[in-house]
Amino acid sequence: MNERIRIYDTTLRDGTQGENISFSAEEKLKIALRLDDLGVDYIEGGWPGSNPRDLRFFEIARTVPLRHARLAAFGCTRKPGGAAEADPHLAALLQSGAPVATVFGKSWDLHVTRILETSLEENLAMIRETIAHLKRHGLEVIYDAEHFFDGYRRNPGYALETVQAAAEAGADAVVLCDTNGGSLPGEIAAALRAAAGRTGGLPLGIHTHNDCGLAVANTLAAVEAGASLVQGTINGYGERCGNADLTSVLPILALKMGRAVAADLRKLQSLSRFVSETANVVPLHARPFVGRSAFAHKGGVHVSAVMKTPEAYEHIDPALVGNTRRVLVSDLAGRSNIAYKARELGVPLEGKPGDARRIVEEIKQLEQEGYQFDVADGSLQILLEKLTGRFEPHFELESFRVTIEKDREFPCQAHATVKIRVNGKQEITAAEGYGPVSALDNALRKALGRFFPDLDTMRLTDFKVRVIDGDRGTAARVRVLIDSRDRESLWSTIGVSEDIIEASWQALADSFQVKLARDKSDRSGQPERAAQAAPASRIPPQGEQA
Amino acid sequence: MNERIRIYDTTLRDGTQGENISFSAEEKLKIALRLDDLGVDYIEGGWPGSNPRDLRFFEIARTVPLRHARLAAFGCTRKPGGAAEADPHLAALLQSGAPVATVFGKSWDLHVTRILETSLEENLAMIRETIAHLKRHGLEVIYDAEHFFDGYRRNPGYALETVQAAAEAGADAVVLCDTNGGSLPGEIAAALRAAAGRTGGLPLGIHTHNDCGLAVANTLAAVEAGASLVQGTINGYGERCGNADLTSVLPILALKMGRAVAADLRKLQSLSRFVSETANVVPLHARPFVGRSAFAHKGGVHVSAVMKTPEAYEHIDPALVGNTRRVLVSDLAGRSNIAYKARELGVPLEGKPGDARRIVEEIKQLEQEGYQFDVADGSLQILLEKLTGRFEPHFELESFRVTIEKDREFPCQAHATVKIRVNGKQEITAAEGYGPVSALDNALRKALGRFFPDLDTMRLTDFKVRVIDGDRGTAARVRVLIDSRDRESLWSTIGVSEDIIEASWQALADSFQVKLARDKSDRSGQPERAAQAAPASRIPPQGEQA
Repeated sequence: MNERIRIYDTTLRDGTQGENISFSAEEKLKIALRLDDLGVDYIEGGWPGSNPRDLRFFEIARTVPLRHARLAAFGCTRKPGGAAEADPHLAALLQSGAPVATVFGKSWDLHVTRILETSLEENLAMIRETIAHLKRHGLEVIYDAEHFFDGYRRNPGYALETVQAAAEAGADAVVLCDTNGGSLPGEIAAALRAAAGRTGGLPLGIHTHNDCGLAVANTLAAVEAGASLVQGTINGYGERCGNADLTSVLPILALKMGRAVAADLRKLQSLSRFVSETANVVPLHARPFVGRSAFAHKGGVHVSAVMKTPEAYEHIDPALVGNTRRVLVSDLAGRSNIAYKARELGVPLEGKPGDARRIVEEIKQLEQEGYQFDVADGSLQILLEKLTGRFEPHFELESFRVTIEKDREFPCQAHATVKIRVNGKQEITAAEGYGPVSALDNALRKALGRFFPDLDTMRLTDFKVRVIDGDRGTAARVRVLIDSRDRESLWSTIGVSEDIIEASWQALADSFQVKLARDKSDRSGQPERAAQAAPASRIPPQGEQA
Repeated sequence: MNERIRIYDTTLRDGTQGENISFSAEEKLKIALRLDDLGVDYIEGGWPGSNPRDLRFFEIARTVPLRHARLAAFGCTRKPGGAAEADPHLAALLQSGAPVATVFGKSWDLHVTRILETSLEENLAMIRETIAHLKRHGLEVIYDAEHFFDGYRRNPGYALETVQAAAEAGADAVVLCDTNGGSLPGEIAAALRAAAGRTGGLPLGIHTHNDCGLAVANTLAAVEAGASLVQGTINGYGERCGNADLTSVLPILALKMGRAVAADLRKLQSLSRFVSETANVVPLHARPFVGRSAFAHKGGVHVSAVMKTPEAYEHIDPALVGNTRRVLVSDLAGRSNIAYKARELGVPLEGKPGDARRIVEEIKQLEQEGYQFDVADGSLQILLEKLTGRFEPHFELESFRVTIEKDREFPCQAHATVKIRVNGKQEITAAEGYGPVSALDNALRKALGRFFPDLDTMRLTDFKVRVIDGDRGTAARVRVLIDSRDRESLWSTIGVSEDIIEASWQALADSFQVKLARDKSDRSGQPERAAQAAPASRIPPQGEQA
């Protein structure tokens, strides 16, 4: 009964079918590395036959070996009336270099006759020949039986014939999909058992959608009925109402059902956050297990009860999934985290006894205002240096002025004037840019260039803007995240303000301060600093592929 | 088997335990009227013993008769060692004037001994005496067995004693609560059956929380096991991860399980929207059944299939829950999508045969540049009008100037000057703002206000910024999305540029153009235009009940 449940993540493929979810190839790679680090068994990277971006992902993924997960490329069965050998989509699967091919085919007769407009027999041949072709090329082949449960409801005989065909053709696993998300747990269990009777002991998988709010429940029902492969996405991202949310499925399997799962659950919360940040989507506070409110306690009596007896009000220990209790009255979280982080960033915290507490309070206050230091190591380093009196600014702002002008339908023009002071010397420069932040960046770079000629090795590699409280319209606070790199490393900085220019300035200034601080310590032969140890630095520099 | 399932809504009480969810007494009344109109059986209005706002709600609610629902006031069992007659909380229940009292008591021995710090026997007496007292005063009494499932897991004997005590004391129904939200469907069903054996045929209810993402599934499992009263909230609002979402539970019970439910499901989507608007919380697009993405289709092949055979890709007809199909116009999409969308937006495409093709090409080109029209109906409408020569601008930009100034560590200051032309008349105004976009918004609004006094019903409700090609650093293109609303509807607009101010301006200007176009067609009594037919605009006017 305790067969290990294999986890198949499709955040990078089905997840991107969600409204507003999209990733560049580089972003996909970053997420894949985090998924690998969590411990999932399979990572579906994309549909190489369908778009160039996915193809590029598989290209760059080949250069970065995964430690645990197998990479899967997604595709569909060969065209009706065609030949598997000549099918360009199947060729793309082979070209992708992924060791696993996941192909979907039709299980619902309605789809065969009305959508594909082919015969039921030809559809079976498509399934058989596609799988056999891919097996001949030595791939592990997972067969996704699209619309299996709807098909089984309307024409059980045919639906079962399709999965039997897949099994006979040599598929390594057959995944039953509730593509439209309309099935109930009892239906899932019954249909899965019926499929098991026709697939000769082959591992069965489950792929659910959340159109009834039951994606997690349906996944669990399938596992109870015998499925041993679970498909889902981080944060449940996916088409319409989303896919089964692995951030719920994994802890339930492991912590509630006692099933073996090769995943380090303590990394779940930070992975969830990382994926939503990368997608630039506001994380759902109420998300089970990993949401910010998942272990939040409100109300006086309640809170004192939680402190006395956590199990009275918490269904699991939040630390098991990397989350923390949020008691909306006082501190608690954090001091040891901060100490850990400070060590990692090379900023010693020892000092007066109250220091650590004061620093935690300060950081909490800033996070309340929208800062998020877990994704901005560079700014955290500067903040810790400031709070411990160790910060040595390499430049100071005297003032800036940014002007944006637009006339009729001509493009905007932006220019900036920046006045800084370096070692008592003032410098004032002006520059244009593609927009106000670009103008500011150019002007600052020009001003600093007089003092620090090495700056041209530094590039801003990513610029993200997130509106924190968008319901305040244009008066909303915004958070700007900037990723920067030079030849050696990557670092991230953050700014928060109601004024997007102010927020951008903070992140920009921090980024330059980090760079200058590192260059200085490099010159003086000090040990490696902080930002170089940031997790993002496993990614190869993008410039090399440009 | 087809006993009617009674629906007990607790949006106004347990829903407000959710982070960021709160309602004034007047807002509660508006929601209560909408719930009554939907057809729910019970509306839990609040906890009159716990706060004055809830007391006031019951006062004003007495003046507005409900047509269908019974109003319930919430409270807890008498104090340990006290007398029911002398308990001020119980007195508040009677004073509230609500015909139904819902009282919760402890079913988990741990809570009795560790949190209440009383004896197991005294807890049973508290349950018995509280219920008997309220029954003597002629109320319908619903007993909420708090932490029943956790209690049953640790000490089944005692948990069952508590519900037996409630039944024997004369409760009209006993509701089993999964207060911490940690139970699985199988546990729920088994414990409910055990409780049924001790409550002598009394109606049993179910109250679940979503901490495992299973609140809906657990509710359904309870109904299958015999529960006939379902507690939940609209949109699943509630403490931590929320309560069972009635917007999923109701359609599943009625449409999938064939259970009788007295609710007009066609009003569900607008009720969901109304509650989130009243709570001033951004609605969850991926919400099953009622979310904006719940019946959204993306991808060309897929879309043409949906048009041919809706049941192939939709688990129910969206109209059954008052929702609509949305075709997302994306770069994969072809001509049939645009034609469909244009019809939906009320912009006729007929004309020269090449027109549709030209429009598709144009949209593809813009999407290549970063526009995303699937999330910006308002801008798509304007674009289609422009491309078909139907666009009538309500104002034209002459010029704007935005200046952002910062001195040392003082906050930025932003101001904007806007010069526009309306019907040949020029207007120039200036305004400050929280940042450059806010300043621009304020200045434009001020300038337009001279010509269009109705503009103050319009609000920008969300402002999103996404960097498209962040790897170009501060020269990256940004996409700005603005959501706006007035009393009748919601619309979204988009702008894309390397200059964030330019992108914001495009989205801002489009938003005002959409608003003005709609106001004009309203005044001239013309048939419904574009944005009115947009899916979001099916919101009923909120004003009617104010």
